[in-house]
Amino acid sequence: MSNFTQQIIEDLSLIRKSSPLVHNITNYVVMNSTANALLAVGASPIMAHSIDEVEEMVTISGVLVINMGTLSEPWVQSMEKAIAKANTLSKPIIFDPVGAGASTYRNTAIRRILDAGFPSIIRGNASEILATLSSSGKTKGVDSTDSSESAIGSAQALSRVTKGVVVISGATDYIIKDTDIRKTVNGDPIMTKVTGMGCTATAICGAFAAVQKDYQRAAFSAMAVMGIAGEMAKVKSSGPGSFQLHFLDALYEISENEIRKYFKET
Amino acid sequence: MSNFTQQIIEDLSLIRKSSPLVHNITNYVVMNSTANALLAVGASPIMAHSIDEVEEMVTISGVLVINMGTLSEPWVQSMEKAIAKANTLSKPIIFDPVGAGASTYRNTAIRRILDAGFPSIIRGNASEILATLSSSGKTKGVDSTDSSESAIGSAQALSRVTKGVVVISGATDYIIKDTDIRKTVNGDPIMTKVTGMGCTATAICGAFAAVQKDYQRAAFSAMAVMGIAGEMAKVKSSGPGSFQLHFLDALYEISENEIRKYFKET
Amino acid sequence: MSNFTQQIIEDLSLIRKSSPLVHNITNYVVMNSTANALLAVGASPIMAHSIDEVEEMVTISGVLVINMGTLSEPWVQSMEKAIAKANTLSKPIIFDPVGAGASTYRNTAIRRILDAGFPSIIRGNASEILATLSSSGKTKGVDSTDSSESAIGSAQALSRVTKGVVVISGATDYIIKDTDIRKTVNGDPIMTKVTGMGCTATAICGAFAAVQKDYQRAAFSAMAVMGIAGEMAKVKSSGPGSFQLHFLDALYEISENEIRKYFKET
Repeated sequence: MSNFTQQIIEDLSLIRKSSPLVHNITNYVVMNSTANALLAVGASPIMAHSIDEVEEMVTISGVLVINMGTLSEPWVQSMEKAIAKANTLSKPIIFDPVGAGASTYRNTAIRRILDAGFPSIIRGNASEILATLSSSGKTKGVDSTDSSESAIGSAQALSRVTKGVVVISGATDYIIKDTDIRKTVNGDPIMTKVTGMGCTATAICGAFAAVQKDYQRAAFSAMAVMGIAGEMAKVKSSGPGSFQLHFLDALYEISENEIRKYFKET
Repeated sequence: MSNFTQQIIEDLSLIRKSSPLVHNITNYVVMNSTANALLAVGASPIMAHSIDEVEEMVTISGVLVINMGTLSEPWVQSMEKAIAKANTLSKPIIFDPVGAGASTYRNTAIRRILDAGFPSIIRGNASEILATLSSSGKTKGVDSTDSSESAIGSAQALSRVTKGVVVISGATDYIIKDTDIRKTVNGDPIMTKVTGMGCTATAICGAFAAVQKDYQRAAFSAMAVMGIAGEMAKVKSSGPGSFQLHFLDALYEISENEIRKYFKET
Repeated sequence: MSNFTQQIIEDLSLIRKSSPLVHNITNYVVMNSTANALLAVGASPIMAHSIDEVEEMVTISGVLVINMGTLSEPWVQSMEKAIAKANTLSKPIIFDPVGAGASTYRNTAIRRILDAGFPSIIRGNASEILATLSSSGKTKGVDSTDSSESAIGSAQALSRVTKGVVVISGATDYIIKDTDIRKTVNGDPIMTKVTGMGCTATAICGAFAAVQKDYQRAAFSAMAVMGIAGEMAKVKSSGPGSFQLHFLDALYEISENEIRKYFKET
């Protein structure tokens, strides 16, 4: 068994043993599916966004997950406050820049979020990672190509800005910490036909980061588990509807055996 | 056939016949699954939270269901207004204190909600019931133990405060009106791995309370139907994903036969 | 093969080829299921409601879908702004007057939305269409009967007010442009037991309107595809829970073969 296989198994086991509280400030579209994915993998989701309570929720949780879909001003203010608190308490912060680059407001929000604290892990698709680097104000003129490979340089630059891990999701996932570039290749194209699979990946990164302080390893284990569960579910599915339920079943069922069987070393 | 079995069958039949309007002010995570559960059991869900229309929605509905997940200030204000209106119109009010005790703001909101009117039924897990009693301002120093049994005394005290029914959900559900303590034991542990099953139970209590004015009986029938549907669904499920859909199918399918077959007298 | 059958096949093919961006300002209950339905049929959903970005989202999208469920004031203001922008850019606007007639606020919102721009397609059930015409301020004393047939006259009047298409959903769907009345009759009664099927129909109308500038034809194709997918899903379902997933699978799977096999000419 490879070192990576062993790490994934160990990290998943830590989630199942400690059932970490994962505090999500996330979008309306995926709240239900994200909460169910966290429960299925063995974590305990909290969904709370009011500025009147986010600091306390951060305090009792093991990790903070910030997701920028269905953004609006009251939510951005809560995100800023929650991030600052998590930063003060040295809790991991996971950031999903959904729709980065799609509007001026969204780009401004990214800048405010990155100014509020340092995300331990940022996860997005190639264009979101490119737009996030651009919005960070630390660089200009990023490549607009959409392939994961083309965003590697930008992800590395973003990793240096945040001093954290940057994950580019795609057919191949790149899990990047400055010059250290790792890859996972599990998964299935049907996952792009279900809304919120990226948001779920981000939340699962949060569950792993709550139990594994090496955040690059945590993100790697999370992306591998997402991909493996996707392959397990695909076999039983006849479309994106049935895939959703089998995916949750797979996150619940996945154990050492499935990881050994499905994980593709690269 | 026992008296309880007969009551559950009659109450469910009343829902199917009259299809009561159930007005929910509930959280973002469970809106979809709650609406679907209400439709499946035979009721008609309304989801409406704006302070500009909650009074009219209460007026046309048979019951008001207040759920405190994903709380924020505009929603608390709407809840207060809706509860006051329901109280004035003598319509049943069902209250789910999601996450009670998790933040100061949440505890303050509970106090405001209980000050606005008298919930006919409060449903929560043991720790939520304990925190709700504490937040009601009528007592101090509640036990922090989490077993359903340990919360019975607090549930009785809370029942005396609200002059209503208090339900403690768990492996055993306790349906309590002051000194009258009833139990249901149907259900399956997989239900704890699906988000919003508790919120669904609360909404289903609402559907029964809209047609059955003996609210302790209504809550008892609701919790029994939840547990029975859970057992029916479990048989067909291979994890929490497939459980969700089979649970909705079970709520739709459940009839006199299933109630006779599955209901466990205690 | 009939002319209508050919049109549905062509229009669906256009969606699959161009994957149009569909900008939704919709309600919390259905955001997830609507996004998944749009993905399954081949479109690209955007869910964004903040007044700070709706104009830019309209600008990059092929169509704007406005849905009035879970209404509140900040959302109505965003809807007005988005509609005005879509009108300026001559992009199609699809409007779903969910719960029209249920509250004074909702009726006022309809008036504001219709004053902000001209919906290319309005879709609702009979009572919603009747209440929408009434709220438009252009007529009074509409019939309160709920059968689709009874709302035809009102739908025609509303069509003349908006100079657009009006769809009355029901066992028979009427797709109306002034004096031109078309019908689709596919579908299954189980669809009324799943929350948001109407909202999904509206969003699917949006996907078709993004690729087919004859909006009556677009709405006709959309309602036919909804009904056909519903029949395909019904065969595999044992209740409203399993129906949901099979419906998404069917939207993903539906092609020329299924349209030829299932479409019922009237």
